[in-house]
Amino acid sequence: MTFDLSEIVSTITGADAAAMQAARDRHAGLAKPAGSLGALEELGIRLAGMHGTATPVPASRPHLIVAAGDHGVHADGVSPWPQAITSIMAGVIADGRAASTVMARGLGIKHTVLDVGCVMDPKPHERLVAARVVTGTRNLRTEDALTEAETLAAIAVGHDQATTVIANGADLLVLGDMGIANTTASACLVASCVGASAVDCTGRGTGVDDAVLAHKTMVVEQALDRVGVGRRPLELLAAFGGAEHAALVGVILAGASRRVPVVLDGVITDAAALIAVAVAPDAVDHLIAGHRSVERAATLALEHLGLRPLVELDLRLGEGSGALLAVPLVQAAARVLSEMASLADLGFDQ
Amino acid sequence: MTFDLSEIVSTITGADAAAMQAARDRHAGLAKPAGSLGALEELGIRLAGMHGTATPVPASRPHLIVAAGDHGVHADGVSPWPQAITSIMAGVIADGRAASTVMARGLGIKHTVLDVGCVMDPKPHERLVAARVVTGTRNLRTEDALTEAETLAAIAVGHDQATTVIANGADLLVLGDMGIANTTASACLVASCVGASAVDCTGRGTGVDDAVLAHKTMVVEQALDRVGVGRRPLELLAAFGGAEHAALVGVILAGASRRVPVVLDGVITDAAALIAVAVAPDAVDHLIAGHRSVERAATLALEHLGLRPLVELDLRLGEGSGALLAVPLVQAAARVLSEMASLADLGFDQ
Repeated sequence: MTFDLSEIVSTITGADAAAMQAARDRHAGLAKPAGSLGALEELGIRLAGMHGTATPVPASRPHLIVAAGDHGVHADGVSPWPQAITSIMAGVIADGRAASTVMARGLGIKHTVLDVGCVMDPKPHERLVAARVVTGTRNLRTEDALTEAETLAAIAVGHDQATTVIANGADLLVLGDMGIANTTASACLVASCVGASAVDCTGRGTGVDDAVLAHKTMVVEQALDRVGVGRRPLELLAAFGGAEHAALVGVILAGASRRVPVVLDGVITDAAALIAVAVAPDAVDHLIAGHRSVERAATLALEHLGLRPLVELDLRLGEGSGALLAVPLVQAAARVLSEMASLADLGFDQ
Repeated sequence: MTFDLSEIVSTITGADAAAMQAARDRHAGLAKPAGSLGALEELGIRLAGMHGTATPVPASRPHLIVAAGDHGVHADGVSPWPQAITSIMAGVIADGRAASTVMARGLGIKHTVLDVGCVMDPKPHERLVAARVVTGTRNLRTEDALTEAETLAAIAVGHDQATTVIANGADLLVLGDMGIANTTASACLVASCVGASAVDCTGRGTGVDDAVLAHKTMVVEQALDRVGVGRRPLELLAAFGGAEHAALVGVILAGASRRVPVVLDGVITDAAALIAVAVAPDAVDHLIAGHRSVERAATLALEHLGLRPLVELDLRLGEGSGALLAVPLVQAAARVLSEMASLADLGFDQ
């Protein structure tokens, strides 16, 4: 399959303003006090804008795509976990026994794991796609993590996978990640995209102590200094990204291009969203912030994107766990618009 | 059916501390960083305490019980809505076309509506139980809203209905309410239970303007002055309550007595929970705060109960809408404990 990024970007258009207004009008006439469903009404109106109709069909076939990759910066000691965990957990996620895929099964949501950059081979599984474009990235502190060719190849992997699941009927894309040390890469991406400092963007990831946090922050600072300012989005993605970030950019662009809403998870997917939206600004209209990660950079990224997170439960796991928990809220927001009685049905004039 | 409140209260015991510790230990050994599921882990540990096992069965048969009633204080002009709306909406909820029951259908959750105190007859429906103990309450500003006998009868209605749905297999009770003017009654209940002022507890309900809010606050203040301090919980319930508050107290006590978790909705159910827990303190261990209503008294009530709300989407509808949205989170919290791979499964020592 040939992959033309600029052609894909050119197909992405923003929200349907007329459909959003129709949904707003429809909400005003439903059998409930105006605005009484709060952020769920806003979400329904945004879904109307994505689907181009005031009565968006509830997402009955969501699909979780988890992108996995390893990071050269792991050698700098930014995580307490061995790098092998990435591949092991990619296999556990595929096998439906990780937190996220246990939740997905409960919610009736299918999943696919993409090995787009692991260091070791995950255990083979029918739900795991071996599509490695790099065997772990280079160390982002000292050199660009990915080449331009690797970056584009990883975007293509995500794009093609999302296109396939959409062709098979998926009507909501749910993003997840797996990658030891990938909060370090995400901190660099968020800092450079929103113009924040290493201190503001570096968090404890899966739970590092004060000493490691200070060291991790210094690593992020050195990486930001190395790359400097004024770089284009794909240059930033190559400089800092995991292959999983790049694949998630591809998934987002595919969803936006096909007008299939995309639910973001934590800081890794939020960082990918910043790059995707920098490349294709209208893509933001097709994004839903699933949850607010405790990772500080996540909040900065969501504010930059102008997205309000749906779930706030202090999660910091990744794998798509927070995005999955938001899916029933997305479904409810759509159903309310499609299925509720109107005041007119009940004989009330407005 | 004879109804002995003190006997029911005597059967209520608190969380199983050993099961909670076992769940805590189990979480520490699952294939994820410790604590990385944040509030979802805490919820899972609480569910373990309710069910008495470290691997609580996911709630596969939740049941929504919506209690409906009218309020004499409506005559004071505390709501912009006509009183007839209570009965009309009770019928729409029963018929599955209200916001909450549209959501319930999407989530696969059955529902029952109790007419325990409406002024007009709702349209008959198989999911609507006609169990009126009063045809609208008296005006809480000038006299007790319910007699002691009416209060106990309404508690019995809720208790018996909950006992029936539990006998039919329900493993999670989801609370909802319908009652024009019932945020005024709830403000009085919360203020008197937590020791807060009328100003702190009176909110805009379904959306009153500044003038009505000021008037509503004055009504609450006069009611609180009338009743005074040092009253017992059931006296407060009779003084201020809707029959729907009393029925919800009965549902909570039935759930706690059978160790079936109960999910609270907004300020009306939170007010009922304050009364239920004042009567049976251990009942709090069986309560889950579904969401944080924008109504100010809701937050005061949840803080008093020591419960963290799961969903925060600025809802102010009632009908069980916020409680329903929390159900998938409850199910996920249980599934994670029951179904995830452990670190030991993956060959890691701890």
